[in-house]
Order: sequence, then structure tokens, then C-alpha cells
Amino acid sequence: MTQTQNDQAQNNQTQSGAVPANVRLGENNYGKAEVNLMKVFRDSPRHEIRELQVRVGMVGDFDAAHAQGDNTDLIATDTVRNTIYGLAKEGFKSSPEEFGKELIAHFVKTGPRVTGAFAEFTEHLWERVQVGGEGHQHSFARQMPKRTARVEGDGQTFKVTSGIEELYVLKTTNSGWEGYLLEERFTTLPETNDRVMATFVTAKWEYGREDVDYDAVWQQVYTQIQETFTDHYSPSLQNTLYLMGQAVLTRCPDISRIWFRMPNKHHLKYNLERFGLENNNEIFHVDPEPYGLMEGWVERA
Amino acid sequence: MTQTQNDQAQNNQTQSGAVPANVRLGENNYGKAEVNLMKVFRDSPRHEIRELQVRVGMVGDFDAAHAQGDNTDLIATDTVRNTIYGLAKEGFKSSPEEFGKELIAHFVKTGPRVTGAFAEFTEHLWERVQVGGEGHQHSFARQMPKRTARVEGDGQTFKVTSGIEELYVLKTTNSGWEGYLLEERFTTLPETNDRVMATFVTAKWEYGREDVDYDAVWQQVYTQIQETFTDHYSPSLQNTLYLMGQAVLTRCPDISRIWFRMPNKHHLKYNLERFGLENNNEIFHVDPEPYGLMEGWVERA
Amino acid sequence: MTQTQNDQAQNNQTQSGAVPANVRLGENNYGKAEVNLMKVFRDSPRHEIRELQVRVGMVGDFDAAHAQGDNTDLIATDTVRNTIYGLAKEGFKSSPEEFGKELIAHFVKTGPRVTGAFAEFTEHLWERVQVGGEGHQHSFARQMPKRTARVEGDGQTFKVTSGIEELYVLKTTNSGWEGYLLEERFTTLPETNDRVMATFVTAKWEYGREDVDYDAVWQQVYTQIQETFTDHYSPSLQNTLYLMGQAVLTRCPDISRIWFRMPNKHHLKYNLERFGLENNNEIFHVDPEPYGLMEGWVERA
Amino acid sequence: MTQTQNDQAQNNQTQSGAVPANVRLGENNYGKAEVNLMKVFRDSPRHEIRELQVRVGMVGDFDAAHAQGDNTDLIATDTVRNTIYGLAKEGFKSSPEEFGKELIAHFVKTGPRVTGAFAEFTEHLWERVQVGGEGHQHSFARQMPKRTARVEGDGQTFKVTSGIEELYVLKTTNSGWEGYLLEERFTTLPETNDRVMATFVTAKWEYGREDVDYDAVWQQVYTQIQETFTDHYSPSLQNTLYLMGQAVLTRCPDISRIWFRMPNKHHLKYNLERFGLENNNEIFHVDPEPYGLMEGWVERA
Repeated sequence: MTQTQNDQAQNNQTQSGAVPANVRLGENNYGKAEVNLMKVFRDSPRHEIRELQVRVGMVGDFDAAHAQGDNTDLIATDTVRNTIYGLAKEGFKSSPEEFGKELIAHFVKTGPRVTGAFAEFTEHLWERVQVGGEGHQHSFARQMPKRTARVEGDGQTFKVTSGIEELYVLKTTNSGWEGYLLEERFTTLPETNDRVMATFVTAKWEYGREDVDYDAVWQQVYTQIQETFTDHYSPSLQNTLYLMGQAVLTRCPDISRIWFRMPNKHHLKYNLERFGLENNNEIFHVDPEPYGLMEGWVERA
Repeated sequence: MTQTQNDQAQNNQTQSGAVPANVRLGENNYGKAEVNLMKVFRDSPRHEIRELQVRVGMVGDFDAAHAQGDNTDLIATDTVRNTIYGLAKEGFKSSPEEFGKELIAHFVKTGPRVTGAFAEFTEHLWERVQVGGEGHQHSFARQMPKRTARVEGDGQTFKVTSGIEELYVLKTTNSGWEGYLLEERFTTLPETNDRVMATFVTAKWEYGREDVDYDAVWQQVYTQIQETFTDHYSPSLQNTLYLMGQAVLTRCPDISRIWFRMPNKHHLKYNLERFGLENNNEIFHVDPEPYGLMEGWVERA
Repeated sequence: MTQTQNDQAQNNQTQSGAVPANVRLGENNYGKAEVNLMKVFRDSPRHEIRELQVRVGMVGDFDAAHAQGDNTDLIATDTVRNTIYGLAKEGFKSSPEEFGKELIAHFVKTGPRVTGAFAEFTEHLWERVQVGGEGHQHSFARQMPKRTARVEGDGQTFKVTSGIEELYVLKTTNSGWEGYLLEERFTTLPETNDRVMATFVTAKWEYGREDVDYDAVWQQVYTQIQETFTDHYSPSLQNTLYLMGQAVLTRCPDISRIWFRMPNKHHLKYNLERFGLENNNEIFHVDPEPYGLMEGWVERA
Repeated sequence: MTQTQNDQAQNNQTQSGAVPANVRLGENNYGKAEVNLMKVFRDSPRHEIRELQVRVGMVGDFDAAHAQGDNTDLIATDTVRNTIYGLAKEGFKSSPEEFGKELIAHFVKTGPRVTGAFAEFTEHLWERVQVGGEGHQHSFARQMPKRTARVEGDGQTFKVTSGIEELYVLKTTNSGWEGYLLEERFTTLPETNDRVMATFVTAKWEYGREDVDYDAVWQQVYTQIQETFTDHYSPSLQNTLYLMGQAVLTRCPDISRIWFRMPNKHHLKYNLERFGLENNNEIFHVDPEPYGLMEGWVERA
């Protein structure tokens, strides 16, 4: 114990007039968040890039650090950052999901007190700049939706979750909301069978096997969600959510279940009749809030 | 079944060339988010105000809505919004936590398919404008930290969680980081026993009983977290997190456990020696990212 | 003068112990901001949509309102909002720029005290969802860059400015920064002739004539900025800014001058040599701040 | 000219098939933005802190850099960042305004091509953590409003603008909106003489002299704006804006004029009558957008 730790231990006993409550450390983790990393693959003149925002959290036997201020054998969070960049050079050959496995295996092996870890990724997507109808060799433009991934494990086995964020889709017709509970004190909304439906899709999914081509699956899900959004009359966001899940599970046998969060970004038909104008579903107020919010898993039966 | 539902059912069968996967609905909820509500208590000329951002999610038997597009007996999310404002008038006499119980009881009672619900609150805090050393009767200025609450239940029993967000505290000395794992390939950080420590505290806590003065407890926790932040030499954010938890559990017997998320908002001593200048812990780069991130529960033993 | 105004006038004289400073109203405007509008063009089954965030500010003789609290003949900001939606129905057949002219002409004509106005627009861009290689009839996905416009005038003549926001482009090579002032006390940056260059382009331009196809010009500028970004070795963002301006003015004869704000979103080569690893421009820290910031006009000589 | 510059010059001539437009560089500047700096004053155990976000832009003869890619004698933006931290150590003894003058004088003196500069500051405000009714020696909590400053000059003379941002104030009564233009096609808003008025004040002011105690004046303005907000019946935000300006100019003889941007953060009385409930100005929807927006200068007559 260093002198500092001695002082600290004494502090713990004396700083409060009252007898301290008898407490213990519960579930906990620590690590580094918002590590922004770009890897450029320069094997050929046609460069590839991947940009990740990474968070790594470690779990293990951290009681002494919390209760006694004893940092012995702790990995500094600064080291976590260095490691993310270092292993990105040595590994990270394919997907964020595989990179997550590499990171977790490393921290469990390196940290004397670390028994497990998780790695969370937000991937910013870039497309090649188009010049004369061709994608440029080394110039890129940022796209809007984001790819997400989370891996957790003990270094031997891993639980992988992949996802999509900020996919904002809208349809101007072929959607409605009818047949709900109408005779209720606070219900004033009229039924409609033609409205604008817009949602900002967040999705995440889990896998039924370990050996997955995560990049290929992500593309399939991304495409399927958009296609299903277009292919039916939607009586509710709930039904569209379910059909998206069904279609993804049909298309992607590796996926065991999928979750969606779909806010209903209301496009309210503006009341123009007050001004002697008709509004044939042409003029809408895009209401930023509040929004209906639907969340749900779709699973294999 | 309406004609629309018939069409919809048919759509479900035919839109995909492949045989659809056999799926079912998993855990799910729906409701309204970001309902922004202010209540003014005008019983005397000295007005009181409370401003809440509310989200309500309902759970129950929503299979038909998801799988068949059958909305029968569903509460519209528009109705959820109306209800939040309506019940704020009839109820909401004290804390967001008690208002949450009122909302949940209402939705379980009103929705034929609703078996439970949760209500989440972010409360914006306002202080009276000071005029000549006195708080004004009806003028207020917004404060920075936010109060949070989450209540969930089946209408009879409730699980309550309260919290604090965006409490940004900083100390210019009496903090260090030493004794950690140094002999490690990716470790370059030097030890220090005098640094700036800054963190953006998020806390949430649970209760050991149902009959609680939530407003009074919140003030105690808010005060205690700040006091503990000042009262010891901090060898790590982990230790400060633990001491904060211990102090809160000592002061507040109603609380059963408390969780903190504490990012280490790094204030990096800027390297001025390159320019022939000394930097005696005076000049810091306030780094927005990455940050160390500590999360943990402190519980009664 | 109403009773309220009388009280108010008296208030103005008595509320401060000191003799009030002799003051007057300077340049001022008022109106409505963040009016979120979507217009759906449903003339054929292949719908078109435009989504605008609108701000309108009016200028004129508003002295009585400010100094005496006399609102006579003022247009309410609520009316400004209603008008934006109403005129979107009656007009807004083509570009935001033309819609801006309609709005300004209306407010100058309608407001007894209004002598001029400005309208500012941020247009959110949507692309058709691709299904089987075809753009869908009525389903859209939000894109990242935004289109901007500002029109001001007295109802007869207008000054139009068009722009682009949030165009985030990056090149992995063919960029450097050399030959700058090196012998300077605070200069530590080494020269490089191969770096990642990334910038978040904001551009705005003015026109040399009134009769312009604003939509067509916007597409040309948007394309040209990206093409110029790719087509040269960049010795500095300043030079790239200039070349972009030159190329736009060459391509678009209607444009009189163009302004760019280009932050240098630094991608810092991470120091891996400390860990015995080479970093051949592969692993970068994407630094969120600080950033170099270049702003400039390019004009016809 | 280096080889790179030669290549570059050639590129400029050949990359476009068309004859390039004859262009010139217009108004321009470059520098570093979002430099986050904290200075700790440790002269006594009662530490003081100031936290600034700084942007510096330089103007001068930068034609060669833009048009030819010739960086000779340019100050790197990395150097700008280093300088801000370095001069914060050597100078920055009092206000951001004075620090701005130091920065500008330095860059004009140091940069062979620099003829002027501006420095913009956003200061984050911190208050001492209260422990037992006393402010702590070295522990602080972040406050909500921000202080701003902008200085520009040629190194000899300076124009200083100071300001406030994000001061969110609200009053629950003693405000109305009546007597405006009612007989108008798009006007539907009813008059009221009792409403909630809320605004997010942005203010900036200029000075009539050079030798000013900027810190003292800032405190006076900050206090006065809040006091004036409370002290009168407000018939409009415009009138309150004017009265605030008048009161500030009365209190602070050093200020020559002051500008306000005051959005009207609408608190809309929720329509509870539909549900058989009275709403006596108790229950409000806090509408995030759109908002009325008032901007204006108040000047000495």
C-alpha cells in the first residue's frame, strides 16, 4: 500500500460523521469510449476505408480499486485507447464484429483482473465520390445511416449483435391507422387510410451461429428493411415492424432474431380549410415531437 | 376484419417469392415519447412550476396488431399524449415518480390489451430569478442538471428508479492515477498524483420501500454526490464512484442501491515545455473524446 | 391606447430608480423560425416531395411595438407560420428560392408596417428507395447533405443566395501541407506530402442575374464540388477551396461568386512506432476538434 | 517553387476541358476553431478556473496560397492551436476580451502575411460546489448560460463585442399578446393578456471606450437582463427586448449598444376542454418548434 492509499483508507473511515452504511460493489465495468478510428486499406490504388467509433468496457475483479483505491494490475483507459489503434493495425482485416472479438480476447489475456469485456462500434459509412459515372479510387463522401455492432465475451465465446441506426425512410401513401380504440375519454384522433408514414429505423439482430459473414448479412438486412418498407399497405408501424422482421429472418438464415425501434415521425396534415384551401395530402407539418414509439423483437417460432 | 385488413392479410402471403420464415413476436412495447409538459401551480401568487419530458410505453397482448395488422382495442399513441396532459391536470400533485404511478394505473385500466406500462421522465430544473436577493414570485431561470425517473408496473405494484443527469463537476487538484499496470506493451501513460478530475455524472437509484418522499430524497442525493466529490483525495474515478455510493446509502435509508456512469472528461496538461514554458498544472486541453468511462452499482451488503 | 398599454407606458417611466438612458431602436426584425414543412406533389403516381425548414423575418416600422408595447398592425408570428403552409399550397411549384420570393412579396403586401423581409431555407434531401434497381414511386430515404437558400427583398427585387451544408468528403491520399512558416516559436508540426484530407463543406453562392433555374444550378454545383475535390493534388485546403470556386464559376455562368467554409477535419496518423508497429498511413485518429477552418469567397475577376 | 507546386500549377491549367473562368480571391480568413482550453489560477489554495472554447481567424495576403498552392510564410493552423495554449500561460490574466487582444497582436506580429485577425470565445461558466454553505476551494460545477466574446483588429486597435448565450428564462404570468393585425386571411391566433412567456436569450454588446472592466460589465448585464425580465407586464417580446436594452444602457455607461435574439419558446395551453377539464393556465405543451424569433439592436439616441 502506498502512502496515498493509506491516506485514502483513513479518509474513507473519517470523512462522514455518521457510521458509513455497509456496502459492496455490484455489477460494474470500465474502459474507453468514443475512440474514433479510421483504417485505410492501401493494398491497391483503389483504397478502402472503415471508420469506427469504438467503446470498450472491461469486467472482472475490480473491488480493490473501487473500495480501497488500490489500482494494482488495472489497465489504464489510456492503454485501452492505444490498444484499439494498435490492434487495428495488426488485426481488423474485415468486419467490426471480428475486430470486437480480437479486442476482447486481447483484454482478457492482458489484464490480470479482467474476466470479460464488451466492444461497441458505430461505423460511419462512406461511398466513393462519383466522377463521370465511376467511383473514385481514393475519394469518399459520408452517408447518413450508420452501422452498429456489439460483441461481448470472455475471450473464448462471444455474443454478437449487429445493427443499423439513423435510416430515415418515408412513404407518401399506402399507409393508414384505423380500427383502434375510439370510444375512450382522451381519444380525439380521426381514423385515416391514407397518410404519410415516416420513421427513423434503429435495428439490431443476433445470430444463430458463430461463423458468419457479418458484412454480407448487414447489406442484406439494410436492403431488405427498405424493400419491405415499400412493399405493403401499412395499417400500423407495428405491422410494418413485424413484416420487416419476418422478411429479414426469411432472407438471412444466420439471424436468430431482430429488434426494431421505430418512432412514428408524424407528418401532420396542416389545417388549410380555415383559409379556404383544400389539403389533399399535400401540405404537412413535420412535427419533431412527440412521436409514437414502437419497439419489438421478431423471433423464429 | 375490414377490407383493408383482408388486403393486408393477402399482402403478407404474397409479397415475397420465398416461403416466409416461421416467426413470432417477442418482447415489445409501444407508446409516445418526448411529450413536453409544463405544469404551473397557481394556488398562491408564488407560482411553482414543473417541466417534464415524458415517454410512456405500454406492454400487453399486441400480437394481432403486429402479425395481422388488426388494431382492435389498441390505444392510439395520440391518445397517450392527450392522456399525459389530461392526467397532469387531474393528478401530478407531487413528484414525477408519483405521476408515473398514476399514468401506469390509468393505461392498464383503460387499455383492453394493456397488462403493464412504463413511464420515463426527464425533468428540467428551474430556479427562481433573483431580484434584490429574493427569488421572484413567477420568474424562473433554467438550471443545468436534470432529474430523471422511471416507473414500471402492472398498475398494482411499481418499480421506481430515480436519477440525475448532466451534473458536470470538476476539481483542480486532490486527484491522481497511480499504481496501475505499467509493464504492458500498449501502456504509455505516466503516473500522476495531481491532476484535474472532471466528470459528467449520471446516477440512478432504486428504493427498498414503496412509501418514499421522492423529492426530498432527490435533493439529498444531489447534495451528497457533490459533497463527496470534494471531500477526499481521489486515486481513481472508480474509488470516487464507490465513495459517492457509500455516502448516498449512508445518508438515504430509503435507497437500496445506486448506479453511476462517470466519464473521465480528460483535462490533458498541454505540453508547453516545447516552447520553453513551464506548465505547473495551469494550462489544459479539455479533450472532448475519447474518455475513460466507469459504470457501476453500489449496493447494501 | 388600451389600458394595458397605459399601464405599460407608466411602467417604463417608473420601474428603474435611475433616469433611463436615452435610447432608440436599431436594426431589427421578427418572424417565425423552424417551420418544418413537407409538400407532396401527387400529380402522378410517381410522387415528388420537398421538405423545408423555413425561417421568415420581417423588417419595417416596428418602433411602437418595441418602445411603447403597441402591437397595432403587427402580423403575429403565428400568422407567419400559417402563411408559410398556406402559400406552400398555393405556390411553391419549383425551388425554395422561388418560394422565398412568393413569401416575401406576400408579407410586404399584407403587413401595413412591413417594408421588407427575408426567408431562409434548409432543405432536407430525399432519394427514392431502390427496389430491384428502380426508384420506388412513393418511398424515400433521407440523404445527408442539405440544401440551403436565403432570399431577401422589398417585394419587388430580391437578393438570392443558395448553398450546400454538411457535404462531408475525404480523400486518403493526393494531399499534403508543406512549405509553410517553420522557424517560429510555437510551430511543431512536421511537413507532409501525403495525408488524409477531410472536410465538411459549407458553400453559398450569389447570382449575376434574376432569371435562374435554381434547381439545375444546385445540382451542377453539388457535382462540381465533389469532382474538383478528387481531381488534383491538394497542397492545402485553401488551394482546394480556390479550385472548387474556379471550377464552379467556370461551369455555372449564372453564379457571380461563391463562398466556402471548409474545416480541416484532421485525421492524425496514430503513433504506433511506440509499440513497434509501422503506420504507413493506415491507422488514423479522427480528431473531432480542434480543426483548421478556412473561409473565403471566389469571385469573377 | 517546389516540384509539387510546379505540378500543381500545371494541374490548374489542364484539369478542366473548358477554359477556366477568370476568377480572383475575395474576402477570406483561416485559423483554428474549437480549441478547448482551461486555465487554472493556483496562486492560492482557493483556485480559480476559466474554460474557453477559442476560434482564431487570420486575414491578410493569402492569394498565393489559394491561387498557386504556395504556402510560403503561412502560419500552420496547428501553430495557431499551440499559440493559444502558449499565450494562455504567458498572458490571459483577466478576461477573454483582453486575451483576444493578446492573441491578435501576436498573430499580426508573427505572421509575415497577416494584417489582422479575430478571436472568438465561448466561455463555460463554473460555480464553486457548495459544502456546508461555503464554496469549495477547488471543486466546481458547470452552469448553464455561456459567456461569449469576439475581438477583431489589426494589432493596434480592437473592436470588442461581448455576449451571453443560453440564458433560458420563463415567467408564468404578467405577459400577453393583444392588439395585433387580426383581420387577415391567415390569422387564427386569439388574443391573450395572460400567458407563459419563455425565451432563450442571446445578447451581444459593443463598447463606447477601450478601457473597460469586461468581467464587471458582464456581471452587470447578466443581472440586469434577468431583473428587467421580471419587472414589467410584457405586451410582447419586442417590448421586453427594448426594455432590457434600455435598462442595460442605463446601468452600464461603457456599453454603446446591445443586440438581442429572443426566440419565443411557446408554451401552448393544452386543450383540455375536449376532455371535460378546465385549463386555467396550468397545463402547457412546451413546443420545441416553430418559435417566434425577435432580433434587434437597442442603441443610444
